[in-house]
Amino acid sequence: MSAETIAKQAKAAFQASQLVEASERVRALYEIGRTLALNRDAILAANREDLSAGQVEVDAGRMPAALLKRLDLTRTDKWDAMLAGVRQIAELPDPNGTISYASKLDDGLQLYRVSCPIGVLLVIFEARPEVVVNIAALAIKSGNVAILKGGKESARTTQIISDAIQTALAHTLLPVTYIQTIQTRAEVSSLLALDQYIDLVIPRGSNELVRNIKNSTRIPVMGHADGLCNVYLDEYVDPQKAVRIVVDSKIDYPAACNAVESLLVHESLLPTVWPTVAQALLEKSVLLLCDDRALSALTNISTSTPNFSTLVQPAPPDAYTTEHLSLTLSVLTVPCLTAAIKHINSFSSHHTDCIVTEDPKAAQTFVRGVDSAGTYINASTRFADGFRYGFGAEVGIATGRIHARGPVGLEGLCTYKYVLKGQGHIVSEFGEGEGKKKYRHEALPKDALPL
Amino acid sequence: MSAETIAKQAKAAFQASQLVEASERVRALYEIGRTLALNRDAILAANREDLSAGQVEVDAGRMPAALLKRLDLTRTDKWDAMLAGVRQIAELPDPNGTISYASKLDDGLQLYRVSCPIGVLLVIFEARPEVVVNIAALAIKSGNVAILKGGKESARTTQIISDAIQTALAHTLLPVTYIQTIQTRAEVSSLLALDQYIDLVIPRGSNELVRNIKNSTRIPVMGHADGLCNVYLDEYVDPQKAVRIVVDSKIDYPAACNAVESLLVHESLLPTVWPTVAQALLEKSVLLLCDDRALSALTNISTSTPNFSTLVQPAPPDAYTTEHLSLTLSVLTVPCLTAAIKHINSFSSHHTDCIVTEDPKAAQTFVRGVDSAGTYINASTRFADGFRYGFGAEVGIATGRIHARGPVGLEGLCTYKYVLKGQGHIVSEFGEGEGKKKYRHEALPKDALPL
Repeated sequence: MSAETIAKQAKAAFQASQLVEASERVRALYEIGRTLALNRDAILAANREDLSAGQVEVDAGRMPAALLKRLDLTRTDKWDAMLAGVRQIAELPDPNGTISYASKLDDGLQLYRVSCPIGVLLVIFEARPEVVVNIAALAIKSGNVAILKGGKESARTTQIISDAIQTALAHTLLPVTYIQTIQTRAEVSSLLALDQYIDLVIPRGSNELVRNIKNSTRIPVMGHADGLCNVYLDEYVDPQKAVRIVVDSKIDYPAACNAVESLLVHESLLPTVWPTVAQALLEKSVLLLCDDRALSALTNISTSTPNFSTLVQPAPPDAYTTEHLSLTLSVLTVPCLTAAIKHINSFSSHHTDCIVTEDPKAAQTFVRGVDSAGTYINASTRFADGFRYGFGAEVGIATGRIHARGPVGLEGLCTYKYVLKGQGHIVSEFGEGEGKKKYRHEALPKDALPL
Repeated sequence: MSAETIAKQAKAAFQASQLVEASERVRALYEIGRTLALNRDAILAANREDLSAGQVEVDAGRMPAALLKRLDLTRTDKWDAMLAGVRQIAELPDPNGTISYASKLDDGLQLYRVSCPIGVLLVIFEARPEVVVNIAALAIKSGNVAILKGGKESARTTQIISDAIQTALAHTLLPVTYIQTIQTRAEVSSLLALDQYIDLVIPRGSNELVRNIKNSTRIPVMGHADGLCNVYLDEYVDPQKAVRIVVDSKIDYPAACNAVESLLVHESLLPTVWPTVAQALLEKSVLLLCDDRALSALTNISTSTPNFSTLVQPAPPDAYTTEHLSLTLSVLTVPCLTAAIKHINSFSSHHTDCIVTEDPKAAQTFVRGVDSAGTYINASTRFADGFRYGFGAEVGIATGRIHARGPVGLEGLCTYKYVLKGQGHIVSEFGEGEGKKKYRHEALPKDALPL
């Protein structure tokens, strides 16, 4: 099937679904859960084929072993978690129909701004095949049609999952083309040209992937890429909080985009709090790339700490612009809060940055001065996550500044429309002259659309 | 100055302004108003030079006379309205600091989503020089830095206005580079490559301009282009409302993007309401491009109506995809509401579309089924406007679906950041296992950020 046919079908499915009730979309989600459960054996068989093919690639040194692990649908409770995720998304509140602005413009003339789906999403993601189910569920729940492209390593698994989803959709009032899956990069390239059919591209992966896609399309892109998060230990830091937050931010899940990559230390802490924090990190085998002053400040602990010479090293020039995504932390001494803010605004990826301080004034200045999607006071950067934020589900963490920023839940997959309800009202009766009506602009309740 | 220097300066100005109070930005607006008033003579002299140069172009047939009129800052009350606009924007509520989500994640761990500026805007617009002042005021009020590019026809006027704005900014705590003006397309091209400094491009002009810009940049684009608006006269229409709404939507300001371009008529109205509506339009000299059935239905009024043969014509093939922006209206007969919705979703520019009906069920179906930024019931499409909506000011009417849709006020120039305030909270203490904490996710008041 050509990319254009796929895109046209998607747009047609979106338009055809406008009058389908939200309850039917919820029913579709349960139907998908049921069909996936029924097809468990076939899906896991396809997954084993992907894994065997992947093992050949790993053995030949063409694929990292870590990637292979992520393909495996039978690991731990992945299968059950995938199905539970569909049920959880089904049970979330409908993100559509929420009124964010309501105003009486005149007697009998009411304006409402109401949330509604964006339209057709093109979602591009990496290896893990269960993401197909997760994204399909988010799209259906939010009323968006989706075209999904997974990693080629999981092609067999995603194809059979996609077939099961379409089988389930065939038992609902939604078109089966509501969720479509594509397999090749060539199809992605063709789809990126079709801005008349596709409304939003959501790439989840590396900065390079997001950048390449932005380079190749007129369609808006909501990128989900890596994070270069910073923690700043302020002059008025609580030492215990410093240790807790830095260690958790670094070691809880080092490969995550919300793990800390650079630690900024106020110079007054060099002889006091910094060695304590460093020791706690070294105990967890974290490699510290330090500037000269932070390095010198650790002389006293150098002999008492095993592996000191391996784990404490001078920072290379690119230390503060590198997303380590591993047990490595860059450390920089800063003379003051202002310098910390300036460094973060210059080098952070504006994902999530944290100050550890007992000084409310410093906290306030940091929160206002740091231009990032998450500005944290005394809390681990690892909290940057849609589930932890209470959204119930997560599309990803948007690294752009437009539409949705930071962790994106169902709300981030919605836009809005204005509904104006009149009784034959016309513009030429309003104005400045004699006998002209004036706009009232009185706030109305936002509880429900009176239609 | 190179485009890169301009862009770097803009980003630096944005970051430097993060800690400047909102009240100082308001003071800057009054300062700009005062400086413009002081420099009135010089600005109007520059405007006369632009007008003289423009007259040469008009005489040589290289520029439409209508464009020249729009350049003229001395026409009617344009100058006073421009200065009044700055004061009005200054007096609007601060769009920043609004809390749209507040949740208690745990004891002592509070999450807030707070509105904040987007960053650096690149705004590209057409001839009218007063737009520089309007956009500069909107940017300053919303906390965004702006780089502005006006039409080349008004280069002298926009340059001297821009100088006056920078003079005014020099008397405030905002950097003078908060508002910069550029003059050439080459500068625009260079700036479109600098996505590390520029956060949003706002083109206001033709569909072609918006499309070209989207083709040339990785930066998100919030386009403001033409509108192809539809009015549908439903089977259960009130004839008087039909006449009022269609006439106002067409003739109040035909060149506006919110004027109606296509009229859809339910077939049952052909012998009844349609001739009445047609006569009202013909009285206003509106050219009607009709499909066969709508044309035949007017036979009875053909002899009694002056200019009938000139003003009533068969619709050419492109009638329903043309934005006339003049006293021309395409007319199409449709068999039912569903057909009307389908036509609108296929051919409308999704700007603003209206149903005229007394049937609440039809109104509800139309509003849900039509996928446009404005879905109207019994009201003129001309209400689609930021001032009429009550936003106090307008950036334009966004024709995309992402971030802001329809009329865009100050709110549309804001994004948000998440502020998480903890007391040393870490993620590894939460989870499913024994002794692990659970997330609370309890709603908090959204009135103010407790910092």
